[in-house]
Amino acid sequence: MQTLREAIRPTTLIRSAKLCDHLGLDITIASETFQHTGSFKFRAAYELASNVPNDEILTASSGNFGQALAYACKLVGKRCTVVMPATSAKVKIDAVRGFGAVVDLVDTAVKGRNERVAELAAQMPDAYHASAYDDEYVIAGNSTLGDELAGRGFDAVIVPVGGGGLISGVITGLRRNGDTSAEIYGAEPLLGNDATRSFRAGHLIANETEPMTIADGARTISLGDLNWPIIRDGAIDMIEVSDERIAEAVRIYFGSANLKCEPTGALTLGAVLEDIERFHDRRICLIVSGGNVDPSLYSSLIAG
Amino acid sequence: MQTLREAIRPTTLIRSAKLCDHLGLDITIASETFQHTGSFKFRAAYELASNVPNDEILTASSGNFGQALAYACKLVGKRCTVVMPATSAKVKIDAVRGFGAVVDLVDTAVKGRNERVAELAAQMPDAYHASAYDDEYVIAGNSTLGDELAGRGFDAVIVPVGGGGLISGVITGLRRNGDTSAEIYGAEPLLGNDATRSFRAGHLIANETEPMTIADGARTISLGDLNWPIIRDGAIDMIEVSDERIAEAVRIYFGSANLKCEPTGALTLGAVLEDIERFHDRRICLIVSGGNVDPSLYSSLIAG
Repeated sequence: MQTLREAIRPTTLIRSAKLCDHLGLDITIASETFQHTGSFKFRAAYELASNVPNDEILTASSGNFGQALAYACKLVGKRCTVVMPATSAKVKIDAVRGFGAVVDLVDTAVKGRNERVAELAAQMPDAYHASAYDDEYVIAGNSTLGDELAGRGFDAVIVPVGGGGLISGVITGLRRNGDTSAEIYGAEPLLGNDATRSFRAGHLIANETEPMTIADGARTISLGDLNWPIIRDGAIDMIEVSDERIAEAVRIYFGSANLKCEPTGALTLGAVLEDIERFHDRRICLIVSGGNVDPSLYSSLIAG
Repeated sequence: MQTLREAIRPTTLIRSAKLCDHLGLDITIASETFQHTGSFKFRAAYELASNVPNDEILTASSGNFGQALAYACKLVGKRCTVVMPATSAKVKIDAVRGFGAVVDLVDTAVKGRNERVAELAAQMPDAYHASAYDDEYVIAGNSTLGDELAGRGFDAVIVPVGGGGLISGVITGLRRNGDTSAEIYGAEPLLGNDATRSFRAGHLIANETEPMTIADGARTISLGDLNWPIIRDGAIDMIEVSDERIAEAVRIYFGSANLKCEPTGALTLGAVLEDIERFHDRRICLIVSGGNVDPSLYSSLIAG
């Protein structure tokens, strides 16, 4: 079996003069769109699937973690069940099934994902119940992206935030490599701004319901218990991004960087668009977390 | 001034398990979509702009070479005029102008691009008249992609063919690095199949008119005189690709590899789709020459 470092693809660093000139900023994109299964989630999923002793793994996921875990389980020869909202992007549902996992669709207006997972967990007592973010293996897997970004001279690294699995991993990776100069920002949908409210209040605050933002990878109720203290102590700020800015960012990546990006992945450029002045004269790194998006939605986004 | 090797971005090698599984093939994508100005043409343009003694450069281009030359001239401080067909993708016309070059639009149904360039050349006697493919500097610039692909154990490298500038460069680069095991295929639009006809006849054959293929980077009349002998002696075969296969390839890259690819760049996957059996059990490298495509055309292509 391959180690995590052997199994993952290094992130793809992209610099576009057109993008930098367009915004008047010094931007490096760290794109996880070419990671296995099309998002950073494979880092976490492989670390988890290859380390837990259980032969069966159960998770809830809006799509990318499910797809990554399904593929990781296939690689290491384990069984996998993924609970997904019925509103998930079709490409993501199909992809999970394509890797041989069982998909359990739940209407989140009727029953919460966590509730459904609890039901299934009771039926599958030998399964490992994996959170897509609130799990030590997940943070450890995602920390490899921090390792890759450390020591590159970035003044600011902006990270998409849903449950906080990626940003807590990136903080962990950057700091253990001695990179203390990169300020780490979270970028989350304005429609589900629990991380921003938590960060300002100094304690965890949850959304009332799953936010229906276009950034379907960030439709989370709250940050995870394991992620929160890492974020509280390691991030410099959280930035709320409107769905309009997210769409604009997807369109700019298409036109100025030839990058196919999903809405959740565009949160970080969206955060920059919310306040361009803030990032003047700084070397900024935008993490693009994934690229999986339905063609019909994508077409409507790039049409503007 | 930067040397060519300092100025270019290395090609982006992408492997997608989803793509490989979907087709049952061992595919590595060498994507030039993240090269400066979004296509491989920057390699040639920078080599040319930084080496010719003239302060002004004139060229005809369906878009990507013009854009690359405009940017290269901006970097080295030279003036640039680009003759483009009025049917070129709007993003390409805008990009050339954005880099400060003069764009001369020509209705190719009324007057050939070469004819218009000859008129302009007479008006600008001190300008260097650059062919987008039939030029030693162009071949030398593009050969750096061959350098990057050499020694990676590919059994077959498939290259998009318009005027032959890229494939002659790739042949040159691979061979001078001692990579003799990679068989080199050209992939050209069926609607403009002069390279295939030339290769089979053993002498240069031209199209009657500019072919109106969707692959707008390959709307060329014939291979260049300097490119032809390199292709004749160094390629193993030419593959004709229908516009339908090109569109299918663009769609597959979107869905299975998160790669935004322009139709001309999709010629090589299209060539594989024309005869999948031919490439079974071989390590193949598909060169994706560029990613610049209008959002409206792209949306219609990925909708299928």
